[in-house]
Amino acid sequence: MSESIQMTDAVSRLLKAENLLFICHKNPDGDTLGAAAALYWALQSLGKTAGVFCADPIHERYDYMGIELFHEQFEPGYIVAVDIAGKQLFGEKASPYVDRVDLCIDHHGSNTGFAEYLLLDDSAAATCEMIYDIILAMGVTIDKRMADCLYTGVSTDTGCFRFTNTTARSHRVASRLIDIGADISVLNELLFENKSKQRIAIEQVALSTLEYHFDGVCALICMTREQIEGIGVDDGDLEGITSIPRSIEGVLVGITMRQQVSGSFKISVRTKVGLDAVAIAVGLGGGGHKQAAGCEVIGGLEFAKDAVLAEVKRVLDEYLQKDERRNA
Amino acid sequence: MSESIQMTDAVSRLLKAENLLFICHKNPDGDTLGAAAALYWALQSLGKTAGVFCADPIHERYDYMGIELFHEQFEPGYIVAVDIAGKQLFGEKASPYVDRVDLCIDHHGSNTGFAEYLLLDDSAAATCEMIYDIILAMGVTIDKRMADCLYTGVSTDTGCFRFTNTTARSHRVASRLIDIGADISVLNELLFENKSKQRIAIEQVALSTLEYHFDGVCALICMTREQIEGIGVDDGDLEGITSIPRSIEGVLVGITMRQQVSGSFKISVRTKVGLDAVAIAVGLGGGGHKQAAGCEVIGGLEFAKDAVLAEVKRVLDEYLQKDERRNA
Repeated sequence: MSESIQMTDAVSRLLKAENLLFICHKNPDGDTLGAAAALYWALQSLGKTAGVFCADPIHERYDYMGIELFHEQFEPGYIVAVDIAGKQLFGEKASPYVDRVDLCIDHHGSNTGFAEYLLLDDSAAATCEMIYDIILAMGVTIDKRMADCLYTGVSTDTGCFRFTNTTARSHRVASRLIDIGADISVLNELLFENKSKQRIAIEQVALSTLEYHFDGVCALICMTREQIEGIGVDDGDLEGITSIPRSIEGVLVGITMRQQVSGSFKISVRTKVGLDAVAIAVGLGGGGHKQAAGCEVIGGLEFAKDAVLAEVKRVLDEYLQKDERRNA
Repeated sequence: MSESIQMTDAVSRLLKAENLLFICHKNPDGDTLGAAAALYWALQSLGKTAGVFCADPIHERYDYMGIELFHEQFEPGYIVAVDIAGKQLFGEKASPYVDRVDLCIDHHGSNTGFAEYLLLDDSAAATCEMIYDIILAMGVTIDKRMADCLYTGVSTDTGCFRFTNTTARSHRVASRLIDIGADISVLNELLFENKSKQRIAIEQVALSTLEYHFDGVCALICMTREQIEGIGVDDGDLEGITSIPRSIEGVLVGITMRQQVSGSFKISVRTKVGLDAVAIAVGLGGGGHKQAAGCEVIGGLEFAKDAVLAEVKRVLDEYLQKDERRNA
């Protein structure tokens, strides 16, 4: 189990360290990359040798961070995991480092404590919010590139300041990064206005199957295995689709059905505040969070659809009855 | 022509005034409503009589602002237009007030100067950024409701901090409003996760017509009059569609064609930074801005499509040649 430390302690450890290696989680996103890159450039500016490692390749959209992945140019003297909640998130190629992490800097409350020391702040919407404070505390002047890296983490983890994890601090950090020179026009276009052609194609398929149920308060979309494989869409893009049905005005429950390789249907349940997604998913052996839950149904399309709609109806009826009582 | 004044002057005029009427522009959006409502509640808190007027009804999504439209309960003593750039934006029902506006508070550089006094700040992304400063300068403590109103304006005019008009100031104001208590989880869901059923239906139609041209760097969607009328979609929702083709990865030019009542095609041209949308639109008698331009082509669908694609090809060829020379 890690020893939890405070920021000043983490800062002095970083300043004392030499030959630092910053490790990102697999399937790297803007926050893990932005955090590692900003720390890399900050420590470089102090004349230290440093590197960034990730088990998976980095999407070219992040080229502006200037990350050149570490390929053992030096023997790592101090290993820092950023935005990594558990060992399973290192990825195969990072396995040589998993059991020798000196420090983990993370904002996930679920962090398993795999590193020797842990700096955890689960009130931060992004690890990059923490890195912003750390770099300032190190006495480094944040330059435009570091600002771009940090803005990337804060903006991507908050869905461009739209998700419920966004706080006053997220906006405060963003405003300072813009003052420093973060090029948010270019970054926002790169990060938020670039749907892959596969994502657009699967949206097209999903919307063509859109059905409304129960007077329009439930919207359902469905993708068969054939459609998913025909498009060659990746998991991230498929995940994004699940927010579509709930985003429709008047819809309280959004259902997304995706056929698995086995033929069964993975079902994502998204609800508006006040209606419990878990109550719908548990009826079919699933689980999750209040507004986002899921389950799997074995059987054909019509069978699976009927099964989930029956659960939706049961929970909706209870909800609407309560609503009526409140308004009576 | 208006006399331009500074903020402190505007503040003392507001503090001296009695029976204030705040007027929003027609087809009211979050910024004009948020600005008027926040000022209304601020002046109410000072014990003044005030009202909010708009020529058009207010969408129920803004109910939390607590606006009850003015219906001549008092004789307006001081008329303030907020977020209104010109007389044509008042709307029919507001005509009694158009020529007697004492003060206009606006962030549109194009403001025509119709009011007696004008407080203009075209560096503000939203009028609500200005109102935040004004309310503080009036010595009023911003409460949760005012914060909700002001956050609405800042977030909607910046596309939830994604548009190119977003500044450090937008984020700074947002962070302070959240500190005060703006309920951004609820507001972001209401404002940004509520596509109308008509909007979803027209997206479905638009995506079903999506074509790629010139090795995928141009994406084109098209809606016939029959489809538009069949869905009963409004102009705002149609406008939103025009951002879809350009949002696709690898696409430099996004074209949206909408058939008009006359049968002709209204064509929206959206380009990524570096490629001039106007150069494409002027070839067909249109105009606009660098990244967003438009034109109209009289003729059938295939004729109109061929015409615009020829212009796209011409401008793309020039752009790609320049790009090659740069990289040579």
